[in-house]
Amino acid sequence: MKSKNQDPQDELFMRLAMKQAIRALRRTAPNPAVGAVILKNSKVLAKGYHRSAGLPHAEIDALQKLGASKAVGSTLYVTLEPCSSHGKTPPCTESIIAAGISRVVYGATDPDKRHRGRAPRILRKAGIVVREGVLAKECSAINAHWNHRVSTGLPWVIAKAGMSLDGRIDSPLHISERRWITSAASRKEGMRIRASVEAILVGGGTVRTDDPALTIRDIKIPEDQPHPWRIVWSKSGKIPKKSKLLTDAHRDRTLLFTNMTLRRVLKELGKRGISSVLIEGGGHTLGEAFKRKLVDEVRFFIAPVIQGGRVPAVNAHISPAHLNEVIYTKIGSDVMISGLVKKLNPES
Amino acid sequence: MKSKNQDPQDELFMRLAMKQAIRALRRTAPNPAVGAVILKNSKVLAKGYHRSAGLPHAEIDALQKLGASKAVGSTLYVTLEPCSSHGKTPPCTESIIAAGISRVVYGATDPDKRHRGRAPRILRKAGIVVREGVLAKECSAINAHWNHRVSTGLPWVIAKAGMSLDGRIDSPLHISERRWITSAASRKEGMRIRASVEAILVGGGTVRTDDPALTIRDIKIPEDQPHPWRIVWSKSGKIPKKSKLLTDAHRDRTLLFTNMTLRRVLKELGKRGISSVLIEGGGHTLGEAFKRKLVDEVRFFIAPVIQGGRVPAVNAHISPAHLNEVIYTKIGSDVMISGLVKKLNPES
Repeated sequence: MKSKNQDPQDELFMRLAMKQAIRALRRTAPNPAVGAVILKNSKVLAKGYHRSAGLPHAEIDALQKLGASKAVGSTLYVTLEPCSSHGKTPPCTESIIAAGISRVVYGATDPDKRHRGRAPRILRKAGIVVREGVLAKECSAINAHWNHRVSTGLPWVIAKAGMSLDGRIDSPLHISERRWITSAASRKEGMRIRASVEAILVGGGTVRTDDPALTIRDIKIPEDQPHPWRIVWSKSGKIPKKSKLLTDAHRDRTLLFTNMTLRRVLKELGKRGISSVLIEGGGHTLGEAFKRKLVDEVRFFIAPVIQGGRVPAVNAHISPAHLNEVIYTKIGSDVMISGLVKKLNPES
Repeated sequence: MKSKNQDPQDELFMRLAMKQAIRALRRTAPNPAVGAVILKNSKVLAKGYHRSAGLPHAEIDALQKLGASKAVGSTLYVTLEPCSSHGKTPPCTESIIAAGISRVVYGATDPDKRHRGRAPRILRKAGIVVREGVLAKECSAINAHWNHRVSTGLPWVIAKAGMSLDGRIDSPLHISERRWITSAASRKEGMRIRASVEAILVGGGTVRTDDPALTIRDIKIPEDQPHPWRIVWSKSGKIPKKSKLLTDAHRDRTLLFTNMTLRRVLKELGKRGISSVLIEGGGHTLGEAFKRKLVDEVRFFIAPVIQGGRVPAVNAHISPAHLNEVIYTKIGSDVMISGLVKKLNPES
């Protein structure tokens, strides 16, 4: 059985499928990014990926490209356990069986406990040879944010701040003389971080003080990649009607949450299928995010200036949040410090 | 004349003299660290350095080693312009002339406007060939702190802090559970910084809260290198009588300044011949130091933890102090950020 179940070339073709999955990134919310390859007699017959929620899953995309009957006797490589339930599209397991595929190799297991492990049972019952977990870690890593949401109900939260050496985020200068604290290179890196998430969140105070656009500028992103959602967390909901977030070309991508805890807002975003949220401030919102242990990852930019301003980057009295996997990167005249928050006793 | 005044080997022997000067570092306050070499027929006859205030200057140290009459017709290399005034010792120019030295090569010019350029005039009048400024920058750099004090009246001030990523220096934990914010490697580097200065200053609040020893531990320093002065800046002067600073083996190296501005304290230290002061906190003292533009150099250690504590590292509302020549160094799990404060409009 082992010779039939395993093939030394499985990893090679799984990597091809992973390349397809990566093309799907940040287009598929609330679905994961998945890629697939169909192989017969060591020849790649078709490749596919999931382009957007509502469109065919990766397996079906590849099958459709190939044409109905040509898949008989082939091997399907897919980066994630095929779905076995009815969603916006019929379950992939049905289509795989119907197409006459004889072997299925998949990477990551579905992290949702309600589905995990169902597909191999269904496929094997239909006489298909199944190999699970090929490059499972790598395949899973493609959807790290999505996995987090599926298993916790909350999006992956990145706390970002640009601050002075002494941890301040306000400029002590008069409003008309205000300057960026961090360098142009850091701000460009900030744009790359924005482009890597599905939503950007700020507090109402930041909207009133800074009127940020929270758009992606000065870097290239694929034209068809949707713009991140812009989330405003405001107790009062008092946001100026002329705010960029409410009036610019992306105004339909702005969501305002009023009179809710930050945790509640993030739960709501999770329910809407948003898997990653970048919190960009201000100090009160970041303080609350750390206080409530909602932050998973930190990206702080520290500029070589002592400010002694009024607004600390993290404005709350919290339990210390220690970081793991810390990376210090010199960027322009600043240093970027990134790391993952150690979660010892996560609140549920 | 040029052939007599210059020699391609001058730099070589000046470097030998610099090595002697470096042996003198941190032993000579209020005097600079100086080294000397006596040369005749391309042969080094003697080397010397200034060991301590009150002891012979470097030139005289070398001459004494050589013995009275043997210096006739020799060349003297000395890292700093020889002194020409009576201090605790007679002027070196007199001894040089009396020893029959025929050529003097020196590195840095005396930064004190009252003395600079006097020595070469006196020596030339006595028929000695003088070459000035050989490796002047390098020779001057040995006494960077001393130069600063001589030209400004104030010691060179280094602001040091160990802080969280969000710029806090207090531990939010209960006093019995208090831990260091920064790593052991950072604290060791902190000891090296202490060993590089002539005084360490803290505010009275820090003495009351932390009871620091401000001693040099866990690193090796030469046995005869004096321990840095320990300066307490306290408005009230209310320092617990059992404080380590008042009771330990180094208690005679503690100075308490009460009811004075921080600038006044530093001026006093300058008058006492202290050329370098490390300010180690707390937040109020560092805040005041930045606010009054008294800081020349910054050494901040940032640990990968978000604290959200009550005490910012720099606790004052100040004009931004921008840094030059910034260096980011990964040290243990922390990053050390060092730089020089840009002084655009220094207060006088």
